[in-house]
Amino acid sequence: MSKWERFLSKETALLKTSEIRDLLKLTEGKNVISFAGGLPDPSTFPAEDIKNISDYVLSNYASRALQYSATAGIPELRQQLVNLSAQRGITGIDEDNIFVTVGSQEALFMLFNLFVDPGDHVFVESPSYLAALNILRARSPNFHGIPLTENGPDLDVLESDLRKLKSEGKKPKLLYIIPTAQNPGGTTLSLAGRKRVLELASEYDFLVVEDDAYGFLVFEGDSPPPIKALDKEGRVIYTGTFSKILAPGFRLGWIVADKDIIHEVELYKQNVDLHTPSFTQFIAAEAIRRNVIQNNLPKIRSLYKRKRDVMLQAIEEHFPKDAKWSKPVGGMFVFTWLSKQKDTLSLLPRALERGVAYVPGSSFYYDYSGRNTMRINFSFPTEEQIRKGIEILGQLLKE
Amino acid sequence: MSKWERFLSKETALLKTSEIRDLLKLTEGKNVISFAGGLPDPSTFPAEDIKNISDYVLSNYASRALQYSATAGIPELRQQLVNLSAQRGITGIDEDNIFVTVGSQEALFMLFNLFVDPGDHVFVESPSYLAALNILRARSPNFHGIPLTENGPDLDVLESDLRKLKSEGKKPKLLYIIPTAQNPGGTTLSLAGRKRVLELASEYDFLVVEDDAYGFLVFEGDSPPPIKALDKEGRVIYTGTFSKILAPGFRLGWIVADKDIIHEVELYKQNVDLHTPSFTQFIAAEAIRRNVIQNNLPKIRSLYKRKRDVMLQAIEEHFPKDAKWSKPVGGMFVFTWLSKQKDTLSLLPRALERGVAYVPGSSFYYDYSGRNTMRINFSFPTEEQIRKGIEILGQLLKE
Repeated sequence: MSKWERFLSKETALLKTSEIRDLLKLTEGKNVISFAGGLPDPSTFPAEDIKNISDYVLSNYASRALQYSATAGIPELRQQLVNLSAQRGITGIDEDNIFVTVGSQEALFMLFNLFVDPGDHVFVESPSYLAALNILRARSPNFHGIPLTENGPDLDVLESDLRKLKSEGKKPKLLYIIPTAQNPGGTTLSLAGRKRVLELASEYDFLVVEDDAYGFLVFEGDSPPPIKALDKEGRVIYTGTFSKILAPGFRLGWIVADKDIIHEVELYKQNVDLHTPSFTQFIAAEAIRRNVIQNNLPKIRSLYKRKRDVMLQAIEEHFPKDAKWSKPVGGMFVFTWLSKQKDTLSLLPRALERGVAYVPGSSFYYDYSGRNTMRINFSFPTEEQIRKGIEILGQLLKE
Repeated sequence: MSKWERFLSKETALLKTSEIRDLLKLTEGKNVISFAGGLPDPSTFPAEDIKNISDYVLSNYASRALQYSATAGIPELRQQLVNLSAQRGITGIDEDNIFVTVGSQEALFMLFNLFVDPGDHVFVESPSYLAALNILRARSPNFHGIPLTENGPDLDVLESDLRKLKSEGKKPKLLYIIPTAQNPGGTTLSLAGRKRVLELASEYDFLVVEDDAYGFLVFEGDSPPPIKALDKEGRVIYTGTFSKILAPGFRLGWIVADKDIIHEVELYKQNVDLHTPSFTQFIAAEAIRRNVIQNNLPKIRSLYKRKRDVMLQAIEEHFPKDAKWSKPVGGMFVFTWLSKQKDTLSLLPRALERGVAYVPGSSFYYDYSGRNTMRINFSFPTEEQIRKGIEILGQLLKE
């Protein structure tokens, strides 16, 4: 407990240090095979291209790239993001629909602060992205968890929850959804499902925050367009990230939304950090313009597909027979459901002792349920580490 | 008004678009002499050094500079900031007292969110930094304005306000202060004044947030050490920025504080944006290590001193005789008090018509008083623009 605790604001008191994070921090620098993070394989970073582009930017745009810039992002990057969005099927937008953020994390932070009041009814997939849940928790909403099926969130549950709310005279505020290569579940929602989400949003009048972090990382089969591409009312607020397709070290993400919503985000961002760094925005804009990102994607996809295959095969071989796991068509993670008696949180210290890290699944549930689940990452470890780590983990789970 | 207004959170409804910002936005790209911003002169950016460093970082640290990094900042930069702090007289700290932020703006955003609840008693200089006041306003505190004298805030008023609060059984929460080359007032608090601030903080038990944005930009006379350098209890939270000494386009700032406070900031930052961009942190660390920043400071100081002199001379020549203005020993601004009848907000559209922009002083007062004041910037415009712009402004003020 901090000696300054008496000065903390009430919201801050809600921020708890995560025991998992503290546990994992202990492993830093140690010889541990980590399935815990969500880090890209550093071999996918186009370092040489970035070096050339960075030289080019500093030779041609130094006085702008090193200076303050507009809160919503530099015009060059906003324009290139209009182009990149078109490659995800999002059309009919212009620069004013784009807002550049410090990672998509900042996008989610601002959106949830802009729109969620304590007590608001907020719908999330169960499980869902840990960091998004943490931001939401700090807003003290009424959570509604939509269980994940093999094909994305169970929309029958969503609809019956909405109907129930309505019958009680209450209004839903927003749905946070990762429809493509879901984190951590690995599922992808069908086109029909996406249309139904939009119909429900319109009928029950709520906003949809669509997190498309893995939209460019689908390595198997076709995936339907983002919900935003089907949105005619402007209810969908889309977030994208450069972290998985260029370099997370730039901390660059973006929002695609109705212009009125972009305006609200702009007011909020002026308070948070004035604007996203100019220099790296110039680099990212140039990386899109030169097709560096687009040309790099096939390499990233085939690398992650191979690693996923190695992981799935190792799991098949070593995990207990009563375990189930996702077969993700994209992204960076396999999600695992163990038998009901297993508790992945209390297993973690033993796994770390044996040199393997993962994230206990309960962190991905708004209500900390799912204690028999775990998320394992395949993008960062080497193929050899995946084989060895999964074998160790499998043995532990069978004991 | 936005068609999505019904979805906004209660705090967000407090964020108002600034009419001044909207007015100034209209001048973008037009041929207007702007005394409105707080932009460094781009000739001070060490672009060639940054290019060399950026190449060096990408050749030697690409896999770390492009990857996710620690929430508090990369170890290299935190270490270099310990060294840089020593040059401001702040000693006896180590890496764990340093936290890297997206500009010092994000530092202030996080600190005020961490520590200020609605209704809390918060002390600010009057006038004070516009963006800090805006963040605070969103927290709905009870403001106490400490009038600025020629030698910094009037500490007698601070003390009598504190005594009054105590007699009412109420507690102060924090003081936000810019003791060196104050923005916008241009004043510097004496050593004795700094010690008295610390004594009052200890006696009445409140936190001090010390904004040292211009600490490295004092170009005349000696300035006393930051309050943080005198702090023995850990009550002072210091914020610094690379925006004025390297390049604002990097959006890099930092906090120096007690470790327990750093820990709270870390928890908060995990929600906001996970961490500050890695790449530019490596560049900044290397820029300190190579003395690029330290070697550049004399050039920046002498340039701004010359520009300040040009501005003060032009003001002397052209402004009405009943006007008063600051003679700043550092920083980027001259603050002007006109006769009581003048209203700088309603004058602004006419000034813009004649091709000159400034910021009406009321923006710098928590209670929007000071309507006869204005802030004029001398770091960005050329000397010729300063002469011409001040002449135009002087004529308008005399009409």
